[in-house]
Amino acid sequence: MIHSDEKSLPEKLSDGIVKYILKEQLQPGDRLPNESVLAEQLGAGRSSVREAIKLLASRNIVTVRQGSGTYVSARPGVVEDPLGFTFIQDKRKLAEDLLEIRFLLEPAIAAWAAAYATEEEIGRIRKLCDETEQLLKAGKDHTEKDVEFHTAISMSSKNLVVPRLTPVIHSAVPLFIDLTKSALRRETIDTHREITEAIAAHDAVRAQDAMYLHLVYNRRLIRTADTLHSGDSL
Amino acid sequence: MIHSDEKSLPEKLSDGIVKYILKEQLQPGDRLPNESVLAEQLGAGRSSVREAIKLLASRNIVTVRQGSGTYVSARPGVVEDPLGFTFIQDKRKLAEDLLEIRFLLEPAIAAWAAAYATEEEIGRIRKLCDETEQLLKAGKDHTEKDVEFHTAISMSSKNLVVPRLTPVIHSAVPLFIDLTKSALRRETIDTHREITEAIAAHDAVRAQDAMYLHLVYNRRLIRTADTLHSGDSL
Repeated sequence: MIHSDEKSLPEKLSDGIVKYILKEQLQPGDRLPNESVLAEQLGAGRSSVREAIKLLASRNIVTVRQGSGTYVSARPGVVEDPLGFTFIQDKRKLAEDLLEIRFLLEPAIAAWAAAYATEEEIGRIRKLCDETEQLLKAGKDHTEKDVEFHTAISMSSKNLVVPRLTPVIHSAVPLFIDLTKSALRRETIDTHREITEAIAAHDAVRAQDAMYLHLVYNRRLIRTADTLHSGDSL
Repeated sequence: MIHSDEKSLPEKLSDGIVKYILKEQLQPGDRLPNESVLAEQLGAGRSSVREAIKLLASRNIVTVRQGSGTYVSARPGVVEDPLGFTFIQDKRKLAEDLLEIRFLLEPAIAAWAAAYATEEEIGRIRKLCDETEQLLKAGKDHTEKDVEFHTAISMSSKNLVVPRLTPVIHSAVPLFIDLTKSALRRETIDTHREITEAIAAHDAVRAQDAMYLHLVYNRRLIRTADTLHSGDSL
């Protein structure tokens, strides 16, 4: 445990609940037993179990729905800002450094997607490509759809780690660039389309190269973005 | 906020404390004001502030030392298992997939380290290389020192993201391989040494190649490790 010198009772109980989720092979969306059942199973008081559940909710392992119950989260254990970028002061350098990481990862991921994507996954990638294009053409904020597009590509890579990593390394650009004002509209539309069609054609080299192109345009944008606002918080 | 349908008061207060840490530019190890001061600043009751601090501790943003106070954590916001690997059932595929990610990232990181490492950083990398070697020779568990060695290389890459990512992608191998019984002792010692000397000589290509070699040995180990125990929990 890295976050505390010694474990409190609720922390120990939250570890117990994680073990329970794993043992029972509960899946995202599955409901946990109620407080009193958990309290009995763990041999603890209900108020301590309630504390433990709050800790698990803050780590996005469970989601508490008022009046309904406690459920395993959609992507359990993947927290908001898992690498603590909030606490990096120099957001510009952070955005540049995240893009360097994207250069290392994403061309290979695009190639894997071209190799392994199913027809259903290709349909989803194409739909997100269309939706992002529409937002871009309308001059609206496409950040969220953009991350969904790249995450869909990651999912079809069949690597278990990649879809969990993609949203993290994509948190960079909106940190200090107002993308709705971006001069990069045409290049983003074209390279997204090319990545999509290369994956659909199962052409790994073309997918990889289209992704390199996409990242080069992004790097140019970041390097020339001095005139845009430089946000200093997430 | 991805982890809850609606924010509770302690959640809102914990966001307030994060803003305070950022505004006051508190650094790792810095002490936060006590509960009553925070309660006054945030216009909330002490018990709600106490709840908020517990949430921040569970996200490793602060560390509570009994009888001493609340401090900004050493690596604030970087939680244990930030990508939720605990909840991936197939630990063998997870280890293989993490190694694929290491292939994409670490040769480039080694090259950056060769380009940018200071004399002090080279000294630290060499010390960790020596310590890992001693543990390997003694047949002891070297996992922790090994991660420290690779993290030290990451630190000297000067990329802000890399040192936060390295411990995460290194959590793989010990998941299902008992490294103390590893047949890879000689190869690990030799490739670690070669990486270290290449960085010390500021030879980026040699550092990159030594890292590739290191990863190839690791991949061979993972692929032939069927006979070792296959742990099913973190």
